[in-house]
Amino acid sequence: MSAFGQSRPTQEASPATQALQLTARPALRQEIERELGEYFTQQQAAAEAYGAEFTHLWALAAEHVLGGKLVRPILMVETYDALRSSPAGGANAGTELPRQVVIRLAAAIELLHYSFLLHDDVIDGDTVRRGRPNLIGAMQARGGAPTADPEQAAAGSTPAMRHWARTGGILMGDLLLAATHQIVARADLPVEARSQLLDLLEHTVIESVAGEQIDVGLADGIIAPDLHTVLAMSAHKTATYTFELPMRAGAILAGASQDVERALTAAGHHLGLAFQLQDDLLSTFGDPAEHGKDAFSDLREGKQTAIISYARMTSTWPSIECDFGDPTLTRERGERARDLLIACGAERFVRGLVDEQASALYEVLAGSGAPSPIPAAARKMLLGFAAELEERRS
Amino acid sequence: MSAFGQSRPTQEASPATQALQLTARPALRQEIERELGEYFTQQQAAAEAYGAEFTHLWALAAEHVLGGKLVRPILMVETYDALRSSPAGGANAGTELPRQVVIRLAAAIELLHYSFLLHDDVIDGDTVRRGRPNLIGAMQARGGAPTADPEQAAAGSTPAMRHWARTGGILMGDLLLAATHQIVARADLPVEARSQLLDLLEHTVIESVAGEQIDVGLADGIIAPDLHTVLAMSAHKTATYTFELPMRAGAILAGASQDVERALTAAGHHLGLAFQLQDDLLSTFGDPAEHGKDAFSDLREGKQTAIISYARMTSTWPSIECDFGDPTLTRERGERARDLLIACGAERFVRGLVDEQASALYEVLAGSGAPSPIPAAARKMLLGFAAELEERRS
Repeated sequence: MSAFGQSRPTQEASPATQALQLTARPALRQEIERELGEYFTQQQAAAEAYGAEFTHLWALAAEHVLGGKLVRPILMVETYDALRSSPAGGANAGTELPRQVVIRLAAAIELLHYSFLLHDDVIDGDTVRRGRPNLIGAMQARGGAPTADPEQAAAGSTPAMRHWARTGGILMGDLLLAATHQIVARADLPVEARSQLLDLLEHTVIESVAGEQIDVGLADGIIAPDLHTVLAMSAHKTATYTFELPMRAGAILAGASQDVERALTAAGHHLGLAFQLQDDLLSTFGDPAEHGKDAFSDLREGKQTAIISYARMTSTWPSIECDFGDPTLTRERGERARDLLIACGAERFVRGLVDEQASALYEVLAGSGAPSPIPAAARKMLLGFAAELEERRS
Repeated sequence: MSAFGQSRPTQEASPATQALQLTARPALRQEIERELGEYFTQQQAAAEAYGAEFTHLWALAAEHVLGGKLVRPILMVETYDALRSSPAGGANAGTELPRQVVIRLAAAIELLHYSFLLHDDVIDGDTVRRGRPNLIGAMQARGGAPTADPEQAAAGSTPAMRHWARTGGILMGDLLLAATHQIVARADLPVEARSQLLDLLEHTVIESVAGEQIDVGLADGIIAPDLHTVLAMSAHKTATYTFELPMRAGAILAGASQDVERALTAAGHHLGLAFQLQDDLLSTFGDPAEHGKDAFSDLREGKQTAIISYARMTSTWPSIECDFGDPTLTRERGERARDLLIACGAERFVRGLVDEQASALYEVLAGSGAPSPIPAAARKMLLGFAAELEERRS
């Protein structure tokens, strides 16, 4: 997968050589993990007043939130650091923020992400993530906290336990959505910056929820799966909170100009959409051993992706449709459907869309006509980020 | 039902004559309804950017949120007004807040209430409230927005539509939980007051969620239904956000002293617990034509109330247990179970608990030893509120 490489502007060095080695940036990752760990330790201690089950719910959340890659908080801090390091870089003359303030807000972005994940899992009925039980799966496998009736716990998953587990997912999602707002509302920042962050959080929540609703509407057959709608859904559901939110938050904290924030918003949009489309391509055409998902799971679930939206418009669709959304899809039928999606041009079309988003990203970073308002250090960071995501996912 | 009347302190006139006529206070109610209406109109307009379904979700929420009694926001504003009107009443010398700020925060309390209701309905699988379809019921009956496929809409409720409707309940609950925090975080208040409100909101969300989890744990058989747990659940799930939150918010906005806020917290706790216990009594022993619920619905659902917790400890329980939680419970069996709950002393016991909470409330209002820190106008308002709730529900 080399989409990100095709239209890279020549004035920048190869992203591969600039790669920031997200996974090998242990100090920042540790700072964020420590902040999250402290948050959950405090909440868990306070939860004890409400009994063993509530305490156990917090313990499970702490365990599962720390399993993530922390892409979003790292992107926020990297954006902040890159903008602050640029003397002519759009950052205002304001004093540098205490590190603690920046790291806490980065942690809040991870809490928001995990809150969305939990409600998404409840909505989709998912009990597994990255091959392990998620919070809901862990709750329904065991029933109650370790202190709950062991006989009942040993009896395995019952409808009551599944209901109990789903409820835990809804309630912990609520707690973390509230927590994100609490952290932003109390951030020790200039009034104007805090107000901008609240605006950004409001926009992010509304747009992500709208994207989630469209996603579910597509899956439930309530909303027609045309390409425009599927692309809007991907932008709202993924690009907004995974890329635009951290990058804009970093810009606000750095005191960057509105021009810089606008350019970063556009860059985040293109990066996010490219990322989501690439994810769809990998799920359908990639090597399951590498991307870690079940082969053909998107086909089996009948997931409405840009690939499928394109295929629908071709004369090949009737031959694919019979297997689309079939939970009993065999490997053989799955391979046949995959080959048909290649043959009808859907794969090529979506790779083209990724290229377009990558080009648009590089154009924003290069500036069109006038130089980009984004300072060089931040441009370099984003190219490295894009390259690293690409490497890790191809 | 005269529990609230039995231990009323003699220095206060009869609550009945002081009743504030909650339902007959049209100006305040209209102010709050107008604020809520404007909020939803704005959100609905902004939602149009995300398509017909998201806009429709906001329209449905607007329709259903305005069907409420607005008990909580009215209690907040009444508390604020009563404290502000007391020259020696614990209110500080700060300037009076613009009415708009107070009304907006009152509306935020109603948004939080509706957010909790929505997630509670999703968790309980309820599609009806006060005899009419709730937001989820309305969504699943129709499928999509009026512009969605009319053939599909006419086909009635399918598993996909029920999933779509439940998802709408989860997502609108998220949006309104976020909205509550946004309104509090942006309230044009002195820094200290806003910080106190954020503390109060944090406490309220955590305690209400903990109460909801215990309620579900009781229903799912994960948590043992002993009396202590059932009472704690009622206090957390209902008393905290229905009474303590509005009364404390009113106190914070009025700049009342910590003594006043503490006394109001205690009063709200007793009022809330009495209210919830009375609700349980009415559901089980009251006249369905008056309280508006299905007769025996608590018995049919197997709801773990204080009535049931007491009955469990008596030798009569085995005769009741066979009907408890039986969804096919007939009227005859229901009447038999109800009579057994009276015979075993459960009704008398819970009426005693209501009396205890009422006495405790009047003790807080009268002050024990020293005079109550709560100013007379606020005491009068709360007694009137208690009397009115009692009248409306008995």
